[in-house]
Amino acid sequence: MSTGKLTIDLDALVANWQALDARTACATAAVVKADAYGLGMARVARALAKAGARQFFVAVAEEGAALRQALGPDADIFVFSGHMPGDADMIGDMHLTPMINSLDQLIRHVEALPGHGFGIQLDSGMNRLGMEPDEWAAVREVALGQNPALIMSHLACADEAAHPMNAAQLATFREMTADTGVPLSLAATGGCLMDADFHFDLTRPGIGLYGGQPFEDARPVVTLDIPVIQTRRVAPGETVGYGNTYTATRETRIATIAAGYADGIHRIMGPKTVLYAEDVPCPVAGRISMDLIGVDITDLGHDPASLRLLGAEQGVDDLADNAGTIGYEILTSLGARYDRRYIGG
Amino acid sequence: MSTGKLTIDLDALVANWQALDARTACATAAVVKADAYGLGMARVARALAKAGARQFFVAVAEEGAALRQALGPDADIFVFSGHMPGDADMIGDMHLTPMINSLDQLIRHVEALPGHGFGIQLDSGMNRLGMEPDEWAAVREVALGQNPALIMSHLACADEAAHPMNAAQLATFREMTADTGVPLSLAATGGCLMDADFHFDLTRPGIGLYGGQPFEDARPVVTLDIPVIQTRRVAPGETVGYGNTYTATRETRIATIAAGYADGIHRIMGPKTVLYAEDVPCPVAGRISMDLIGVDITDLGHDPASLRLLGAEQGVDDLADNAGTIGYEILTSLGARYDRRYIGG
Repeated sequence: MSTGKLTIDLDALVANWQALDARTACATAAVVKADAYGLGMARVARALAKAGARQFFVAVAEEGAALRQALGPDADIFVFSGHMPGDADMIGDMHLTPMINSLDQLIRHVEALPGHGFGIQLDSGMNRLGMEPDEWAAVREVALGQNPALIMSHLACADEAAHPMNAAQLATFREMTADTGVPLSLAATGGCLMDADFHFDLTRPGIGLYGGQPFEDARPVVTLDIPVIQTRRVAPGETVGYGNTYTATRETRIATIAAGYADGIHRIMGPKTVLYAEDVPCPVAGRISMDLIGVDITDLGHDPASLRLLGAEQGVDDLADNAGTIGYEILTSLGARYDRRYIGG
Repeated sequence: MSTGKLTIDLDALVANWQALDARTACATAAVVKADAYGLGMARVARALAKAGARQFFVAVAEEGAALRQALGPDADIFVFSGHMPGDADMIGDMHLTPMINSLDQLIRHVEALPGHGFGIQLDSGMNRLGMEPDEWAAVREVALGQNPALIMSHLACADEAAHPMNAAQLATFREMTADTGVPLSLAATGGCLMDADFHFDLTRPGIGLYGGQPFEDARPVVTLDIPVIQTRRVAPGETVGYGNTYTATRETRIATIAAGYADGIHRIMGPKTVLYAEDVPCPVAGRISMDLIGVDITDLGHDPASLRLLGAEQGVDDLADNAGTIGYEILTSLGARYDRRYIGG
């Protein structure tokens, strides 16, 4: 066994969903796209369904089909990318609810699957997915006549509650959805944490479930322990790793651990990142390789069997800062070679 | 279908292996660790075996077990991480050859699997994997008495042929392996391109097979086409994507495509990256999201069905430059949601 061990605490994940649900008076869905942000869609979704989640969101129909197999017939599964060419069989057979993004998609959907449920995604200013105000004005009556299950939009700046874009998008969404009589959804994790005006009938948290910012009270969900392959003494002046970027300045002990950028540990985070042996931080020594990382364990005083990259001492947002990105990308990068183990659920 | 289409040209891959093989007078193995650098280990290895490759290298025993299932009994499968605790059954049952990195591993191996083949990895200066000169001196006679199949080491600076580290590692490797009578290997892709002193009995190219630097004559192997979900008109002053980082300065047409950083398109590459419609470059507009990217298609003059991120116009090393990394990481990040299609082989 020389692969890292990724432990996913489903009890913490469920507690995060419940905590976000408790912040609003409305229903709370769960976003499980991108393999539940890298943590395993089937296990994550089943744990949340057991805790009471009834609505799930995925990015593409292929994910929706896999999710239906995992959850059985009772859940509502919404597909953000809507109804794309070639999706009709999956949407029909797997009882998926595409979030229709355009007139083209609406025509495709009602022609291929007349009477099959759908939702509508509106663009309230992010200019990414959803119908524009003029497009919506033109098709609104026809679309509403088909009984959409949900109308939603998405906030561009919800990680900054005070950003004026939030109020602008809220006003646009209200205007576009006035008197539709259809359940409405605007908030993802950031929106759950804003005031009740943003909550409408259904919230759709993603990152907060998985322990990431902007949900500051989130419980950490993932722990990543990487086995040590071997340790060695490195004399002052010797170098470690590719390109000789690290030179020992003292009698140094280096552990080589069995993971690298092919496991989603971004190469760029190397210079700022430490691993932990209990509470002792051990800095990365030299460049992160594809499958291997050198770690300076001199101050530890003994040779550990494994080192911890993610856990209570250092979370996904810490690694994100080291890599110049966001916690979401740290999670979705978690590699396929890890041995995934689940706690609780 | 709203997932990207990743096309892998196995004929180009085989041609790259043959071209590297032709540069040396010795045997040429293939490194297929990390799921063949993200391109699919089983398909890649079978194509190379059909072309004549007989030796394959993987990072961990789990990969070796999967590779044995794909290749059948005839190939030699070497495991860089050696013999780790818990690996004995996989190594024994799947006839893997662990590259023993330390005295600890040697003892573990001969106790668990007496008489089972192994190789030896020596550290010639990179301080990452392999036995140190003093450790090797102590166990050399015992180890050689067990008939190792191969002795290898790895170069730290082979992407810079003139780096003095290469000559230093060559001298150390020669000294450590003198009069062993065992087949020797020092060169990966970079070493294949250096002079014959570095070639020994077996070379082990990895990145060069997959079309990446430092093998400048490599044929590109991957093409990545991403479907357009919808297009929209964006007026001057409107913003696109998270955080309002992009503001249109003219009448702009934006395509939203169905891939993002969860598919391995590093978020950090956004500001420098373009996608192609035929030969027209279309810049990324705003931040790369988890499953979606906005692209400025104004200059194209029509709405495309898909846009190309990787291909002849823009290769893995171009994207690596945009992301501040190396082509290897672009390849190993290629996401699980892509529809992988193989040409040739």
